[in-house]
Amino acid sequence: MNNKFDVVTFGETMLRFTPPGLQRWEQTHSFEIHVGGSESNTAVGLARLGCRVSWISRLTDNALGRMIARTLIQHGVDTSSVIWTEEDRVGLYFLEEGRTPRGSQIIYDRRHSALTKIQRSDINESLFAPGNSRWFHCTGITPALSSAAADVTTYMLDRAKHAGWKLSFDINYRRKLWTPQQALAVCQPLIAQVDLLFSPLRDARELFSLGAHESVDQVLRALKDRFPNATVILTCGPDGALAFNGQRIYEQPAFVTEPIGRLGGGDAFTAGYLASYIRNDDIALALRYGAATAAMKYSIPGDLPLVDRYAVEALIALGETQQINR
Amino acid sequence: MNNKFDVVTFGETMLRFTPPGLQRWEQTHSFEIHVGGSESNTAVGLARLGCRVSWISRLTDNALGRMIARTLIQHGVDTSSVIWTEEDRVGLYFLEEGRTPRGSQIIYDRRHSALTKIQRSDINESLFAPGNSRWFHCTGITPALSSAAADVTTYMLDRAKHAGWKLSFDINYRRKLWTPQQALAVCQPLIAQVDLLFSPLRDARELFSLGAHESVDQVLRALKDRFPNATVILTCGPDGALAFNGQRIYEQPAFVTEPIGRLGGGDAFTAGYLASYIRNDDIALALRYGAATAAMKYSIPGDLPLVDRYAVEALIALGETQQINR
Amino acid sequence: MNNKFDVVTFGETMLRFTPPGLQRWEQTHSFEIHVGGSESNTAVGLARLGCRVSWISRLTDNALGRMIARTLIQHGVDTSSVIWTEEDRVGLYFLEEGRTPRGSQIIYDRRHSALTKIQRSDINESLFAPGNSRWFHCTGITPALSSAAADVTTYMLDRAKHAGWKLSFDINYRRKLWTPQQALAVCQPLIAQVDLLFSPLRDARELFSLGAHESVDQVLRALKDRFPNATVILTCGPDGALAFNGQRIYEQPAFVTEPIGRLGGGDAFTAGYLASYIRNDDIALALRYGAATAAMKYSIPGDLPLVDRYAVEALIALGETQQINR
Amino acid sequence: MNNKFDVVTFGETMLRFTPPGLQRWEQTHSFEIHVGGSESNTAVGLARLGCRVSWISRLTDNALGRMIARTLIQHGVDTSSVIWTEEDRVGLYFLEEGRTPRGSQIIYDRRHSALTKIQRSDINESLFAPGNSRWFHCTGITPALSSAAADVTTYMLDRAKHAGWKLSFDINYRRKLWTPQQALAVCQPLIAQVDLLFSPLRDARELFSLGAHESVDQVLRALKDRFPNATVILTCGPDGALAFNGQRIYEQPAFVTEPIGRLGGGDAFTAGYLASYIRNDDIALALRYGAATAAMKYSIPGDLPLVDRYAVEALIALGETQQINR
Amino acid sequence: MNNKFDVVTFGETMLRFTPPGLQRWEQTHSFEIHVGGSESNTAVGLARLGCRVSWISRLTDNALGRMIARTLIQHGVDTSSVIWTEEDRVGLYFLEEGRTPRGSQIIYDRRHSALTKIQRSDINESLFAPGNSRWFHCTGITPALSSAAADVTTYMLDRAKHAGWKLSFDINYRRKLWTPQQALAVCQPLIAQVDLLFSPLRDARELFSLGAHESVDQVLRALKDRFPNATVILTCGPDGALAFNGQRIYEQPAFVTEPIGRLGGGDAFTAGYLASYIRNDDIALALRYGAATAAMKYSIPGDLPLVDRYAVEALIALGETQQINR
Amino acid sequence: MNNKFDVVTFGETMLRFTPPGLQRWEQTHSFEIHVGGSESNTAVGLARLGCRVSWISRLTDNALGRMIARTLIQHGVDTSSVIWTEEDRVGLYFLEEGRTPRGSQIIYDRRHSALTKIQRSDINESLFAPGNSRWFHCTGITPALSSAAADVTTYMLDRAKHAGWKLSFDINYRRKLWTPQQALAVCQPLIAQVDLLFSPLRDARELFSLGAHESVDQVLRALKDRFPNATVILTCGPDGALAFNGQRIYEQPAFVTEPIGRLGGGDAFTAGYLASYIRNDDIALALRYGAATAAMKYSIPGDLPLVDRYAVEALIALGETQQINR
Repeated sequence: MNNKFDVVTFGETMLRFTPPGLQRWEQTHSFEIHVGGSESNTAVGLARLGCRVSWISRLTDNALGRMIARTLIQHGVDTSSVIWTEEDRVGLYFLEEGRTPRGSQIIYDRRHSALTKIQRSDINESLFAPGNSRWFHCTGITPALSSAAADVTTYMLDRAKHAGWKLSFDINYRRKLWTPQQALAVCQPLIAQVDLLFSPLRDARELFSLGAHESVDQVLRALKDRFPNATVILTCGPDGALAFNGQRIYEQPAFVTEPIGRLGGGDAFTAGYLASYIRNDDIALALRYGAATAAMKYSIPGDLPLVDRYAVEALIALGETQQINR
Repeated sequence: MNNKFDVVTFGETMLRFTPPGLQRWEQTHSFEIHVGGSESNTAVGLARLGCRVSWISRLTDNALGRMIARTLIQHGVDTSSVIWTEEDRVGLYFLEEGRTPRGSQIIYDRRHSALTKIQRSDINESLFAPGNSRWFHCTGITPALSSAAADVTTYMLDRAKHAGWKLSFDINYRRKLWTPQQALAVCQPLIAQVDLLFSPLRDARELFSLGAHESVDQVLRALKDRFPNATVILTCGPDGALAFNGQRIYEQPAFVTEPIGRLGGGDAFTAGYLASYIRNDDIALALRYGAATAAMKYSIPGDLPLVDRYAVEALIALGETQQINR
Repeated sequence: MNNKFDVVTFGETMLRFTPPGLQRWEQTHSFEIHVGGSESNTAVGLARLGCRVSWISRLTDNALGRMIARTLIQHGVDTSSVIWTEEDRVGLYFLEEGRTPRGSQIIYDRRHSALTKIQRSDINESLFAPGNSRWFHCTGITPALSSAAADVTTYMLDRAKHAGWKLSFDINYRRKLWTPQQALAVCQPLIAQVDLLFSPLRDARELFSLGAHESVDQVLRALKDRFPNATVILTCGPDGALAFNGQRIYEQPAFVTEPIGRLGGGDAFTAGYLASYIRNDDIALALRYGAATAAMKYSIPGDLPLVDRYAVEALIALGETQQINR
Repeated sequence: MNNKFDVVTFGETMLRFTPPGLQRWEQTHSFEIHVGGSESNTAVGLARLGCRVSWISRLTDNALGRMIARTLIQHGVDTSSVIWTEEDRVGLYFLEEGRTPRGSQIIYDRRHSALTKIQRSDINESLFAPGNSRWFHCTGITPALSSAAADVTTYMLDRAKHAGWKLSFDINYRRKLWTPQQALAVCQPLIAQVDLLFSPLRDARELFSLGAHESVDQVLRALKDRFPNATVILTCGPDGALAFNGQRIYEQPAFVTEPIGRLGGGDAFTAGYLASYIRNDDIALALRYGAATAAMKYSIPGDLPLVDRYAVEALIALGETQQINR
Repeated sequence: MNNKFDVVTFGETMLRFTPPGLQRWEQTHSFEIHVGGSESNTAVGLARLGCRVSWISRLTDNALGRMIARTLIQHGVDTSSVIWTEEDRVGLYFLEEGRTPRGSQIIYDRRHSALTKIQRSDINESLFAPGNSRWFHCTGITPALSSAAADVTTYMLDRAKHAGWKLSFDINYRRKLWTPQQALAVCQPLIAQVDLLFSPLRDARELFSLGAHESVDQVLRALKDRFPNATVILTCGPDGALAFNGQRIYEQPAFVTEPIGRLGGGDAFTAGYLASYIRNDDIALALRYGAATAAMKYSIPGDLPLVDRYAVEALIALGETQQINR
Repeated sequence: MNNKFDVVTFGETMLRFTPPGLQRWEQTHSFEIHVGGSESNTAVGLARLGCRVSWISRLTDNALGRMIARTLIQHGVDTSSVIWTEEDRVGLYFLEEGRTPRGSQIIYDRRHSALTKIQRSDINESLFAPGNSRWFHCTGITPALSSAAADVTTYMLDRAKHAGWKLSFDINYRRKLWTPQQALAVCQPLIAQVDLLFSPLRDARELFSLGAHESVDQVLRALKDRFPNATVILTCGPDGALAFNGQRIYEQPAFVTEPIGRLGGGDAFTAGYLASYIRNDDIALALRYGAATAAMKYSIPGDLPLVDRYAVEALIALGETQQINR
């Protein structure tokens, strides 16, 4: 309880450029700017829910990199351990938001970004000093970015474990970055160490070759078999989420939403789960907190879960839509 | 029929500031400006539906106060009886529009507004001259603003009654302004005089301690018992509206809507009811007119019921969605 | 296959002015500009789906007329046969987009436009040279604009037929332009020549006095009886589309959509049908292609079907909503 | 002093569509909407400066026509004598604002507008009743629009004269509407009747063939010779304005401005001149008031002189830029 | 050098609402939001120029109050000593930006704000702990807000002096808040203590009755006579600035600017002066730094001096406009 | 005169992202999108001035690359020879527009773009077929992007020369891409071949070590000495331009402008010069045409010279600002 941070996260954050008002690429003449990255999305959610959280990355020291840091700072995330460089570039992505039957389209432009060149020596020794944190969170996106990023992810998980911190990992498989085979080869040794594993159902099926003939429960148990040290959380979108700690399977339905901003829902779930679990050490409650945070996020434009703690808790209490209280 | 106005209303109107595009407070860098106040919302609806209507208030004579008057004037409301002052301030409110499960949030900044300092002597005697109007409408918001505003409300209801006008009152209980006990103490003597009482179901339950175990019909009858002089109208949102005149209960279901602008729906209902009732003296028809006007309002951004009379009547006639007629 | 164009179209295209964000006319202080016209909407759809297409019209040579041409050019439509004039004006229309129960409202301001003054001598002889195209498409809007426009439509259909091109015609009855009697008198001789007739169900009922007691199949057969040379396509909005070639009736349900831009859906259907039919000569497949293109259009703001061929084909293959593929 | 109106004006008002932010036509995807017309610009200026003013025109009764009326109403102009029709169209103009050396470009789309079809019988007899006004103002634009509009202008000047009102006329020659010969033939008999003639220097030179070899004073005297009944006001843009009443030439330099909205500057001058002259009957003072009002207008976007009376008078008093008074 | 902060500031910060694009109040339908307050403007400037700075105030804990804090945090200002309350309101001001001859107009709506209710007991004792800061800066606006705010200003200056910090004070006379007599009565005892006094020339003339017949030098000497303990800085807008420390008068001309955002220029000057003076203890250099920071601010929209340290220093080095370096 | 194109150009075009309204990076939440690249800027200018022009590049085939092509196509530039690839990325740059003394700031993000990977084999042989063009234009930016781009530039100049085309080259030295030494080593052999050399004065001084002690004439002669085959054009911003063909020095002052969009002015000059020279073979006239086109460009937002030919020629004829012609 006397740690400086509750959670330390590590990963890449990008600027996102989106045509306003559901326009197609062909129609827009401006882009709205958002800041998005799985780990920093989770960090913002954690901070908004009352946790002390630090986000670590490597960023180019120009107006674009500073936009990212400034955004995270204003929502309460510590960025004092970010590694700034004059080299390389800031990762970008372009999102065209669709509506049925037009799917959303993403163009990633994140190659050669500053994080892909990170090295172990960039990480300050003092990060893992006693009392600095008690939890480390990362995702399967970072090791997919470059072998350098994979190496530093490995290193940080090791160091965090030795520092006595708990570890969590969100698989977040990105098929535009690598194949399932590549992902498995890199991520399995990492996951083997963690205490808490988050995986979207779809990713679990794709990575571990668990086809439609396997039930969701079977997928959950298969993951637990592979990674016996971890509590496994499976997120199933509108079908809710499940957790398995080896003893019991917990189920949590999804809350009703009118989706405005779908991206970042999974990261919000992770933030809600962690924020609750760190405080209460209660899987069922944490699942509910995660589901409520994700539902709130769906109603918020952009990638960041700009949720209010009181509203998340009111949603859990009522299980229904908030009213205007005049 | 030879009156100068069909309806005179009295109350406070505020500027409303809203982040554009469903953004959270944290995301916006501008506010859209709307003009909103229960009584002037109803006044605009009445004017758009063909009635001659005057709105009375006390406003600070600066650019903000003039924005309010200019907006009402352009939609056909007479503002020549507004009391202008160099003192005090214009009431404001801030609205963040949510989507399920994120509730809309309101910050009121209306204390110390010009209307809270109004005095009986501000009201021009000539207002109640013969032939000036035949109906006076006010709501339970105004007496909640200050004891001065409550006193002038009482005074005006008295004077209007003596002038032989009909009186209508919308309970519009605001829990951010006072407690049910305070509201009852002030409003009951006012309501006792009126010919027509509008109340949202929720307000009726809260003010008169009518819990969930009492049916809607029972609530309606309980109000009629308390206020035997008035026809009582109960609005129940998506469940429609009911009226009871002591003889018969009238029921009106709600029209289907895709809600764009929920605020002001109740005031639009009142406008539709009054506009029809004044013309036709027919409760069933007035209920239907009220419901159609409210449904139209739900599809219009902002607080004001910028409805077209022909479209309201076409909706009543068809009971369905208008088509594009090319 | 060695033609210069797959399809030549002829008609009027207007600038459309729309209040942003579902505002009413009374609320807006700016208009978004779109480009819309039934035939050029279809032309853009054809171009996006891989066809070579030329659009012919008469346009005033000012900034407004050039906006229209520039927009079509950038989406791949040939405009080199457009007749430019210093005279007359560019047709405009104003659209207020509604939501239930508020219907969308259109104000046409297209009288005296350049196309209404077109003459046979404006059409370059070389247009009908061998190998220039293999299909000519027009609609019932153009002959409704003026007797001059009707005369040139007649002339072009004749010339196209003599050049050995296939002919298609979309009835597109506009009650704001003429009566059913006027429309029939002008259009029947034109339709008698065509190979392919598109008609919205509502237009067919209205023009040919086929009331609600006649089933959709009966309407389809009635049209085929009247125009035995043509394959008849009946579009029924959310109820899908049917085709009848004299031998067999083909049915195609509509794809699920979240409608963002309803206008131009029928023109998109035509584009999809033609693009597929020209390539595959298969009515069932063309109907499905038409329905998928229309569904995609519904999710796109504005009049133009800015669809992607790969996405239309993926929709046909999956019959469901696209996912974000990260 | 007991007249209902100080000034009655008559003319056409258009909607103006302008690309935002100094964009070229080729760059814009929206138009800002303004309301502009020489006579209504002057009417708005008069109302803002404290005069009671009525504007008469013929307008199509649709959303566009009502935009015009609503705008004028909210700035204090009476529109109760406007003639509404279901026929014809609302005049439009498109303005691309330039910066040196790129000139502003105007596309007029005002042909076939409702005003061009006006008839003497449209004008209500009661307009010229005793005590209704004491001044009538019109310009040389209206008679240029159509022979019908010219006929009604003639009629109204006649009737106003017989009613004992003073008459003013602004030449406002529009070379896109007619030739100098046509303008002279129509306008000379009109101007012969008026008490006050406004003319831009450029128009005077062009209409009356007064070349660069004639001094400004000579132009002024030439006009006075032609129209001996009128006080002649010559506006010379940044070179100020002159007046000649047959006895004395008055000169007024222009006030310093940073021009934001050049259009409507002349109409603002007229408003300022008339507002002052009606109150004080002092040519020198009226010229100064006109120049100050025009300078204020130059700093205001759009066509309308949304000036504050206190600020115009402060500018006259100080002859310099206003400061922020915190 | 081992202090936690270089400077502590204290004062009120407001939200500013401005019509976009130089519109008049009558033309706007939205307000751009900025954050502005003399002391926090200076704090942001100090932070951007490399100083560690803390801003102290009392703020209502709602979305509006948090907007202010979030903005200051993201530009590097510490807000951990802000006193948050559920009561009162956030100060607002409305700014219409003018252009010659139309002056900018300000409507203040700051009465009853949270800061006006501050008490000595709100200030945490630890603020004045050894090593917490070495400079305290405040202005003459704060004591003008309420007697409570004046009392806390007095208290904080006392405590800061006893803590051995240097004190600076900017007179910033606001005639909308109090009279010169009131201002003098309250401020003179405060100024008597400070080490550094900033005053706009206009304020000095108005407060100390130094008319146009007194030269700028005489004004400067008069201030120094009254407040012998302070170095006196006189800012004269486009005429530059002067400093007098009793021995020597320093003069600094203003840098050339194209003004985009005039508000906050004086606060930026103060930030530049202090940032330089704290580092170098050199009055001439600090004046130049102040003038360069103010000039930079003039080119930046809004109230905050979002300057870059390297650019301020490059401006000082070159004394001319920056070039685009491609 | 029977060539397919008048000019072929080759180079990289980027998307430019700019904060709206002169905001700083710290203030913006959206970027306006423009399309910019020296050679395509010139191509657009040539097309607008009546030349047939083709632009060649290598572009990634995604929504961003297609934005570039679509923009050039709509302004009349042929893009049929663009080489499309699924690989690599689209070059970007970010521009913050400043005002004195705040300089504009550019962040280039163009490394690893598609053009940097171009190969000789990408260029279609048929490009240099007889009659395809008569002029080839490129700049010193392209060879600075990569050795591959430099190699293809060399190759294309060679092939164009052998095809009998005229060659022009704009030095356009970019210090962010290479050193003067590197630039000289690569560019000198290229320039040695060309018929027409454009150089900004600043670039000529920097590349050829011609300091401030050398007059502009001396710089011009030094270039001519080095590159005796070429007519040399020196552009000196507000000081106009000079040309030297070995016989005579031509001087052309700059036209007066109110600069709105400074970027692309040099490319517009080149377009104007070439368009005129190709038609008239007259250096003095071409210089004047170049200066007028550049001045027009300065008044247009964005990078592209969206000039009108008639306006450029009117500017030349009058040598002064255009007036609004109503």
